[in-house]
Amino acid sequence: MPGRIILAAGQLGPIARADSRESVVARLLAMLTEAAARKADFIVFPELALTTFFPRWHFTDEDELDSFYETAMPNPVTRPLFEAAARLGIGFNLGFAELVREGGRKRRFNTSVAVDRSGRIAGKYRKVHLPGHRNHEPWRPFQHLEKRYFETGDLGFPVHDVDGVRLGMFICNDRRWPETWRVMGLKGAEVICGGYNTPLHNPPVPQHDQLSSFHHLLSMQAGAYQNGAFTVGAGKAGIEEGCMLLGHSCIVAPTGELAALTTTLEDEVITAVADFARCREIRENIFNFAEHREPQNYGLIAAI
Amino acid sequence: MPGRIILAAGQLGPIARADSRESVVARLLAMLTEAAARKADFIVFPELALTTFFPRWHFTDEDELDSFYETAMPNPVTRPLFEAAARLGIGFNLGFAELVREGGRKRRFNTSVAVDRSGRIAGKYRKVHLPGHRNHEPWRPFQHLEKRYFETGDLGFPVHDVDGVRLGMFICNDRRWPETWRVMGLKGAEVICGGYNTPLHNPPVPQHDQLSSFHHLLSMQAGAYQNGAFTVGAGKAGIEEGCMLLGHSCIVAPTGELAALTTTLEDEVITAVADFARCREIRENIFNFAEHREPQNYGLIAAI
Repeated sequence: MPGRIILAAGQLGPIARADSRESVVARLLAMLTEAAARKADFIVFPELALTTFFPRWHFTDEDELDSFYETAMPNPVTRPLFEAAARLGIGFNLGFAELVREGGRKRRFNTSVAVDRSGRIAGKYRKVHLPGHRNHEPWRPFQHLEKRYFETGDLGFPVHDVDGVRLGMFICNDRRWPETWRVMGLKGAEVICGGYNTPLHNPPVPQHDQLSSFHHLLSMQAGAYQNGAFTVGAGKAGIEEGCMLLGHSCIVAPTGELAALTTTLEDEVITAVADFARCREIRENIFNFAEHREPQNYGLIAAI
Repeated sequence: MPGRIILAAGQLGPIARADSRESVVARLLAMLTEAAARKADFIVFPELALTTFFPRWHFTDEDELDSFYETAMPNPVTRPLFEAAARLGIGFNLGFAELVREGGRKRRFNTSVAVDRSGRIAGKYRKVHLPGHRNHEPWRPFQHLEKRYFETGDLGFPVHDVDGVRLGMFICNDRRWPETWRVMGLKGAEVICGGYNTPLHNPPVPQHDQLSSFHHLLSMQAGAYQNGAFTVGAGKAGIEEGCMLLGHSCIVAPTGELAALTTTLEDEVITAVADFARCREIRENIFNFAEHREPQNYGLIAAI
């Protein structure tokens, strides 16, 4: 296990619906290259990073919907990212829409992979906490149809060995749920990272729109502190197809302290040192799980 | 269920070891009376509110240790608080050291009660997450012997009906654990409250001393937001027997917003309106448990 690495977040500005995947991969490559030049060992990219955030529309044409999904990873379009990772010796976390055919049917997941510095996929995660709604709701100014377009992830919350670091992934809404963090914390995660697309406007409760950044950072900082892990969150930011998305991509220390924060709504790289001794300061003291947890009282949390 | 109440926190300044319980109850009575005059319906007092924070010392004389515990609640010294509650129509949450004789042996708990506006005990809680250590550690400038002086609470995390409000209690270190909040959130708590004694100096990790207030507020705000509950935390503050204790008693809205905060290290009352429609804004949207939780993935959290 390395004692210390440099973590990066690669925030994306908006991706228009007309933008090609090739153009997006070129932007990701530019950030991967910048992060490597700044000595980063691992960079986190947003959720569904290869296209616009398509759950904002209701599609009735299945071919049109399918066009937003990847059927293989890597694939010819994304392979340059994997090759650059190996060439530059930097790992990455990439979110994408995954379409697989299993048992004679299409299965759709909101997925991410963790790629190590040799360009190999070291871990895969499928989003568990799908926000939004299942059916078209015409009253909304835009849709949030994740529950329609994705199945609930079926891989649990795995923690992977990525170049000697114990790394787990969340995707967007997962980060708000303390259960996400705790399961990976219990598995000894040292880095818990992921991407997001967070519309500033939440049509059912617009009175919370002003709290979007606060709720994001509160969840990230609490999750890091309460599990003694470094966390990296990378957003897709800015006005995308008329919808404002939250920036404030961040790197948080195991103390909950905000170590780095984006301050634009554009493509932007931030980096911070992750010294894993800081994880132990928390996990061997205030959140020493073996010493202080009382799981006989937690049954209701896992009750089905 | 009332639609709206006024919540209060009654922070205590230090209690010297030589101070009598009568003198402390007089201070609590003054705050109860002030809170009632400010139209509060319920006031939260600190953990172990009747004496100095005695786990900072290693006692070898059992009679001396026993002198810090209550064997009945109410008792002659605390009865005026219960009577004032009934007279003024205000409920309260009070923490104390509880000594009971069961099965021929002494049992010790770090306990709190919720008292309704008729002066009746409507709920009782015994602290689950005991911090600190079991054995005397002479290298420390002061001890934190909660694991020696108390048994782990055996009542789970109950939620009570207190004057029509669904109310649960934490005690001190409990507030750092997301499990505490979630169990009560799953039981529909509208108010989750409790007291604390938080030394600013944590001898094993002094590099975190500067983060005491941040970690306290982070835990309170995340717990409130992630469960859509109002929360009140009342501390014992200031320099008590040479040990600096955290102030920053607070009332937090279900949005995680800090609605009221003490700004002294003395006896101080703060109040805030609790409109329970604000709980529903969170619990029927972003944290709609029935719609969005995925407990089939949470088993590890409750595994024994």
